[in-house]
Amino acid sequence: MCGIFGAYSPMGKKVLEDVYLGLYALQHRGQEAAGVAWVNPQGRISSIKGSGLVHLALNQAELAAVETSCAIGHVRYSTAGGSELANAQPLTASTSKTSLAVAHNGNLTNAGGIKLFLENRGAIFHSATDTEVILHLMAHQPHKESLDALLDSLTRLRGAYSLAMVIGQDLVAARDPWGFRPLVIGKRDDVFYVSSETCALNLVGASVVREVEPGEVVIFGRKGMDSIPIPVDVKRRYGCAFEFVYFARPDSVISGRSVYEVRKELGRKLADRAPCPEAHLATGMPDSGTIAALGYAEKSATPYEQTVVRNRYVGRTFIEPTQRVRELGVRIKLNPITEVLSGKNVVVVDDSIVRGTTCQRMISMIKACGASQVHVRISSPPVRFPCYYGIDTPTRVELAAARMNLRQLEREVGADSLSYITEEDLIEAIGLPCGEVCTACFSGQYMEGGEDNEPEL
Amino acid sequence: MCGIFGAYSPMGKKVLEDVYLGLYALQHRGQEAAGVAWVNPQGRISSIKGSGLVHLALNQAELAAVETSCAIGHVRYSTAGGSELANAQPLTASTSKTSLAVAHNGNLTNAGGIKLFLENRGAIFHSATDTEVILHLMAHQPHKESLDALLDSLTRLRGAYSLAMVIGQDLVAARDPWGFRPLVIGKRDDVFYVSSETCALNLVGASVVREVEPGEVVIFGRKGMDSIPIPVDVKRRYGCAFEFVYFARPDSVISGRSVYEVRKELGRKLADRAPCPEAHLATGMPDSGTIAALGYAEKSATPYEQTVVRNRYVGRTFIEPTQRVRELGVRIKLNPITEVLSGKNVVVVDDSIVRGTTCQRMISMIKACGASQVHVRISSPPVRFPCYYGIDTPTRVELAAARMNLRQLEREVGADSLSYITEEDLIEAIGLPCGEVCTACFSGQYMEGGEDNEPEL
Amino acid sequence: MCGIFGAYSPMGKKVLEDVYLGLYALQHRGQEAAGVAWVNPQGRISSIKGSGLVHLALNQAELAAVETSCAIGHVRYSTAGGSELANAQPLTASTSKTSLAVAHNGNLTNAGGIKLFLENRGAIFHSATDTEVILHLMAHQPHKESLDALLDSLTRLRGAYSLAMVIGQDLVAARDPWGFRPLVIGKRDDVFYVSSETCALNLVGASVVREVEPGEVVIFGRKGMDSIPIPVDVKRRYGCAFEFVYFARPDSVISGRSVYEVRKELGRKLADRAPCPEAHLATGMPDSGTIAALGYAEKSATPYEQTVVRNRYVGRTFIEPTQRVRELGVRIKLNPITEVLSGKNVVVVDDSIVRGTTCQRMISMIKACGASQVHVRISSPPVRFPCYYGIDTPTRVELAAARMNLRQLEREVGADSLSYITEEDLIEAIGLPCGEVCTACFSGQYMEGGEDNEPEL
Amino acid sequence: MCGIFGAYSPMGKKVLEDVYLGLYALQHRGQEAAGVAWVNPQGRISSIKGSGLVHLALNQAELAAVETSCAIGHVRYSTAGGSELANAQPLTASTSKTSLAVAHNGNLTNAGGIKLFLENRGAIFHSATDTEVILHLMAHQPHKESLDALLDSLTRLRGAYSLAMVIGQDLVAARDPWGFRPLVIGKRDDVFYVSSETCALNLVGASVVREVEPGEVVIFGRKGMDSIPIPVDVKRRYGCAFEFVYFARPDSVISGRSVYEVRKELGRKLADRAPCPEAHLATGMPDSGTIAALGYAEKSATPYEQTVVRNRYVGRTFIEPTQRVRELGVRIKLNPITEVLSGKNVVVVDDSIVRGTTCQRMISMIKACGASQVHVRISSPPVRFPCYYGIDTPTRVELAAARMNLRQLEREVGADSLSYITEEDLIEAIGLPCGEVCTACFSGQYMEGGEDNEPEL
Repeated sequence: MCGIFGAYSPMGKKVLEDVYLGLYALQHRGQEAAGVAWVNPQGRISSIKGSGLVHLALNQAELAAVETSCAIGHVRYSTAGGSELANAQPLTASTSKTSLAVAHNGNLTNAGGIKLFLENRGAIFHSATDTEVILHLMAHQPHKESLDALLDSLTRLRGAYSLAMVIGQDLVAARDPWGFRPLVIGKRDDVFYVSSETCALNLVGASVVREVEPGEVVIFGRKGMDSIPIPVDVKRRYGCAFEFVYFARPDSVISGRSVYEVRKELGRKLADRAPCPEAHLATGMPDSGTIAALGYAEKSATPYEQTVVRNRYVGRTFIEPTQRVRELGVRIKLNPITEVLSGKNVVVVDDSIVRGTTCQRMISMIKACGASQVHVRISSPPVRFPCYYGIDTPTRVELAAARMNLRQLEREVGADSLSYITEEDLIEAIGLPCGEVCTACFSGQYMEGGEDNEPEL
Repeated sequence: MCGIFGAYSPMGKKVLEDVYLGLYALQHRGQEAAGVAWVNPQGRISSIKGSGLVHLALNQAELAAVETSCAIGHVRYSTAGGSELANAQPLTASTSKTSLAVAHNGNLTNAGGIKLFLENRGAIFHSATDTEVILHLMAHQPHKESLDALLDSLTRLRGAYSLAMVIGQDLVAARDPWGFRPLVIGKRDDVFYVSSETCALNLVGASVVREVEPGEVVIFGRKGMDSIPIPVDVKRRYGCAFEFVYFARPDSVISGRSVYEVRKELGRKLADRAPCPEAHLATGMPDSGTIAALGYAEKSATPYEQTVVRNRYVGRTFIEPTQRVRELGVRIKLNPITEVLSGKNVVVVDDSIVRGTTCQRMISMIKACGASQVHVRISSPPVRFPCYYGIDTPTRVELAAARMNLRQLEREVGADSLSYITEEDLIEAIGLPCGEVCTACFSGQYMEGGEDNEPEL
Repeated sequence: MCGIFGAYSPMGKKVLEDVYLGLYALQHRGQEAAGVAWVNPQGRISSIKGSGLVHLALNQAELAAVETSCAIGHVRYSTAGGSELANAQPLTASTSKTSLAVAHNGNLTNAGGIKLFLENRGAIFHSATDTEVILHLMAHQPHKESLDALLDSLTRLRGAYSLAMVIGQDLVAARDPWGFRPLVIGKRDDVFYVSSETCALNLVGASVVREVEPGEVVIFGRKGMDSIPIPVDVKRRYGCAFEFVYFARPDSVISGRSVYEVRKELGRKLADRAPCPEAHLATGMPDSGTIAALGYAEKSATPYEQTVVRNRYVGRTFIEPTQRVRELGVRIKLNPITEVLSGKNVVVVDDSIVRGTTCQRMISMIKACGASQVHVRISSPPVRFPCYYGIDTPTRVELAAARMNLRQLEREVGADSLSYITEEDLIEAIGLPCGEVCTACFSGQYMEGGEDNEPEL
Repeated sequence: MCGIFGAYSPMGKKVLEDVYLGLYALQHRGQEAAGVAWVNPQGRISSIKGSGLVHLALNQAELAAVETSCAIGHVRYSTAGGSELANAQPLTASTSKTSLAVAHNGNLTNAGGIKLFLENRGAIFHSATDTEVILHLMAHQPHKESLDALLDSLTRLRGAYSLAMVIGQDLVAARDPWGFRPLVIGKRDDVFYVSSETCALNLVGASVVREVEPGEVVIFGRKGMDSIPIPVDVKRRYGCAFEFVYFARPDSVISGRSVYEVRKELGRKLADRAPCPEAHLATGMPDSGTIAALGYAEKSATPYEQTVVRNRYVGRTFIEPTQRVRELGVRIKLNPITEVLSGKNVVVVDDSIVRGTTCQRMISMIKACGASQVHVRISSPPVRFPCYYGIDTPTRVELAAARMNLRQLEREVGADSLSYITEEDLIEAIGLPCGEVCTACFSGQYMEGGEDNEPEL
């Protein structure tokens, strides 16, 4: 997944602390590593990266003191490329022309071919990320102006990229022509921001200006904001449905749609598509199913209860996976309330089933507390195909819904009943035209022309 | 506050990892320091203590490897005694008779006088905690058997104490005759546990045996479990109402009453006591008001909504209180969802108002998102008096409800209306006889005879 | 061993950084732990202690900023009492009368009996050090003035103690009536210092005033320096010979005698006592034998060479004792120079032989470099008895010279010849009356009345 | 400066711990950073680098466990390139052909031009070291075999380089055609080593095979050891005289000459060139002048004394440069022994004078201890020119001997007399033909053709 954030002040205000705070708001998009890069007083690029959560990887007080009015940041999620710090972003480079830094959310589907091509021309790659090809493509056009080199490079890329870059003294944002991942522009007084999600703009007190359009490069420089199109023809758009279903924070707005409202609507659709008249109460899988469960409860007039208590310190307090801890299982993190569940028929709403193991453990735990029946309702269609555009899904054979039909899966997880919504329900709840939503992980219909030929420079 | 946990296996099983996990489940009762003490293979007592959350203070893998079948642990909350590590518990001592360790939840009201008395007999105190007087009282009776020395010492104490102790090779639990703080016994196979709350017994897979009774000392030794009464006459009990209102985890059961159910009932009482017909939706102050808000919504048939998103990483990611962060205020942690709140009359339920500042900031933030009216409903009576029995309340002049009447406080926090439940509502919702519940912080009626005379040894 | 240092400014100058620097100069006396204690602005005592070398245990910059004009410090060597941080010094206590801190160099021979006596009166000991009995003895006389309580306590002690203490607002130095360990007073401008050795006074720019006399308590307070005798009769003095032979730094002066000059004189005596006409060169065991080797070379007119190079970073760079490292042995630290040693008859001078293993390894290594003969000369008499007065010698059975006669030991270490000086040589070289030098480790003649009866308070 | 070390076992023995130990023996050549690189079980290159001394930068136990039979290491001294970790070595790269790692001792004089040339062909440089050009030169010849690409690259380099490299699965050593820096081959059983100095071979128990010849590339692979010449014509050699005077460890042998013997001979030459009949004693500046002082004392029949004691823990215990520490000056580290110096005429021998400040401080300190006269004798000619071949000398204006004539410098440092040896003395003492020794820092006669033209690939 990953989250990106950038800030630029034409008036010379310090912006690096805001980038830190923006990353903090985007922490749910990546917990493996975090980094920032900025234009230093010498006009070159400095950067700091570290492992783990933002506050472990970076030092807020130190960043707050840095004199810079142009900076970007990144939180890293994916294990693609491995967890070495060399793969943390932003990546930086100094070419013969200029200094560069890039923070990338998404996944390039033709990175492998471009890398081979460049290595045969002498390029030395230092990371295992697909992002590094962008820097080398630019460096291998040493006689072009930087923006021309960028545009030329972007036209060669296939797949998903939302980018925040520093080029020379400017902040540059770019979004692939297919619009896979979100990217939005904000403003507070004279400071411009770019962010993966609106919730980070809210945190720094900025208002939303507009989204970066699919296929658009936006440049923030001395003279303000400028826009250039990426000259690539596209047939349709592929906005990621999973951002609405699970990934984005509920307080964000994507393509003009409130994520909270979409999730609640998904719950309502689910209540219509898969009612459960025998239920005494509805509850959400903590924390991923809560909002859809509220929608389900509302539409079906079933009482909503918080049936499982999550240890507030899970995630803060690291628990070693010792023998004893494995034996205790999910109880370490979650404790169902016997007094609420005992003797009841329970509807449990969750956003999706990936491997099925979490769902199975939860049902078994709820039944152990005395629930009579457990009915599972999923607020998205079955995930049957891997994502090549930036979400870290397992291979097909690991996807529960690809290995089993509905009845088998129902038995596997131990539910008294199991139901999903349909793709049509999903697209209706999102409220965007169906030609703009990517549903590849449900349908297997990927973007055409993803794996491209060798670039010519 | 503080939380305590102990484990004992007469069959010689290793128990220290369970103490670690128990403390982890009790983390909400104290985040300042954590510690454990155990009987080592030489039959003496070892201990490890550290600052901060359990996983920072202690090393799970290291503890899991320790050969001990008798151990106790403590998480420290209070700032009484200061935050120095010397004040972290368990406190340990070796007297001429035996080895001792003690973990204490509560606050002794006559510790000052006892300390003076002992210093005049040569005692050297090493911590600023009231707990240390227990050790010195025992050491100053060198010719008595340990349990006799303990009983004699406990009869001299006034105020609140739930104790988990190691005395020699045994685990000992004790609870003051007034029953201020909870303390419960659990069992899994042959292992006995004592814990501040049942949620920690759930986590280690133990079932609840019973509570330690007010005025009871329970000894776990080679021959199993034994019980001795503390010979002190009491007129009534003082079970802490705030454990139900706010302090305990909702998945715990205290005095046979589910905390979740009590909180939901408090919400229902609140809906009866202070209805709000003009409200479009009800919501809880995150996270302290959520359960009572569900009860309020249910009883008043008002739709329940999650209107504010808490950053999942608050508490994990430390944010420096820089100028910029102060300027951004509560937005750093909480983001209200404009799309849900805009143009609505909102009922906000919270558990209590202490200083009033948090409440004021939340109302102002919700109104900034476009809410038309904000009605505040509190699921406990006004807190007008400080607690001397282990809860870290501010002095009277800082307590908002002690400084102002209801209308003034309503204006101060900026609410369109503000209502509380009554003491009677509270006691009804808890469901215990009113002669067993401490309501000193609401009524100012403290236990009699708290500050006692010098002990004679 | 251990080293102690104290500083006091009647004019209110900050002195804690000087204590840090003094400890740094005394680092050779103890590397296991270091600590400082001082009078804080509230008139009470603060202290910081840590494991390892001074710069790891303490933070110079932090100490330099502390407002205090009365402070003491300690570097810990001994493993008596174990290496736990609880045993690091200074030890502190607050009694009903005053605040105390104590730093101790030496070893009390009757600490065990006193400890039992005090525990039977209710005392709780927190460390395994003999030093703690001093604090409890004082606390158990709560109605006496502090200095009276100190004097009374000191008269009950047997064995070796050089003390730097904080009592209330004053710095107090004390030295046992037998004069086992050195203790010296210095002054720079208006600041008074006490130190185990003069080299630490040199480092802080102070000049030497005089030694603290055996059996003297010196108080540094508002009105300057005052002196009180400890009312104990003694028959003779026991100044430690090993301070001159090995322990003290060569740039220190003890009892008016330059340690460097004594060591060189020991080498000259050794040349007379055990000449080696066939030698081509003389060298010192690095680094303990260097100065005596210079004296030996001078007196015997043998060329002096540095034959072994010690890795400059030994001690700074920690080497794990892996299989490979054990296989490489002493070569890890020391490299003999083949070009200098090959074909030569070599005299190797060292200060003493304890277990004999180091000596054996060195000889074997030197012979491996081609030396024809290796003649070992020791600049002290054979060590045949353990020290009970503060030097960490092994038990008798581990002492090579106690287990073997000279010829056996010569064979054991692989020397072509092995010789020592005599006790008479030693005392002559030191230059003090023989009734003032302790030679117990050579002769087994310990101080009389070391293990005393129970104290009466 | 820097030190390099490599190890290769054709039989598959683990060698990385030996590289760690080799670096430890070479620690005197660089304390700023350390790193290792090795062939991992996947046949690619792994590397670990860190700041500071070897044991801080690297983890011996971890390295000892690594399965690899081909590894190199580096200790970094120079501040050229800045102290950022990005500049620590070995540098690694994976090209289209193979994996590379390089550790470099020396300084390339034409690196700037090559870097510009490569950046104009798309290369992205990641460090500020001159070493990185070697990797990019190789990567820009993607169609050549690796060794051919290496040889081609080396012919383009000017200046000093001793290299230990991993190329594919092989260990490769190379030394520039001018022979500036040492590089030697060792062997223990079947394991081959390359090292900057013989002392590191001694430590790992290896015997010296021979030096890598100037202009030679040596390859250690499956089939043993192979050698290829670098096709560059040279007129003469430039073996660094300062390795003998100061830089190398005294237990090393360079070009067949014992460094210890050379230093002692330098002292003897100095006694002949600059006698001092009025001296009572000779001493060395600790620790750089000790061996030459022994030679001086021997030749001039002046008694040798250790007059200054260096705190054994200097370098281990970090001292903050606070106001107080600056006031105390060199006394923090060094303490002269008044008893030895008082009233004496002293000859102080040192290896060189760079800025003159250390010398001045030492003389002033010795005089403060009562020395009557201080005569300074330097065991090398005056350093008047900066070094461009890997020694970190200051610019000319900072070099004391470039700014002042002998009499001025004598006055500046406060000596009663000051003398040097001549270049002829130096070359005679080293014992190599004068056409093989670089004396550029004394004479200003640098190698011809250092700054070269752009390479053509």
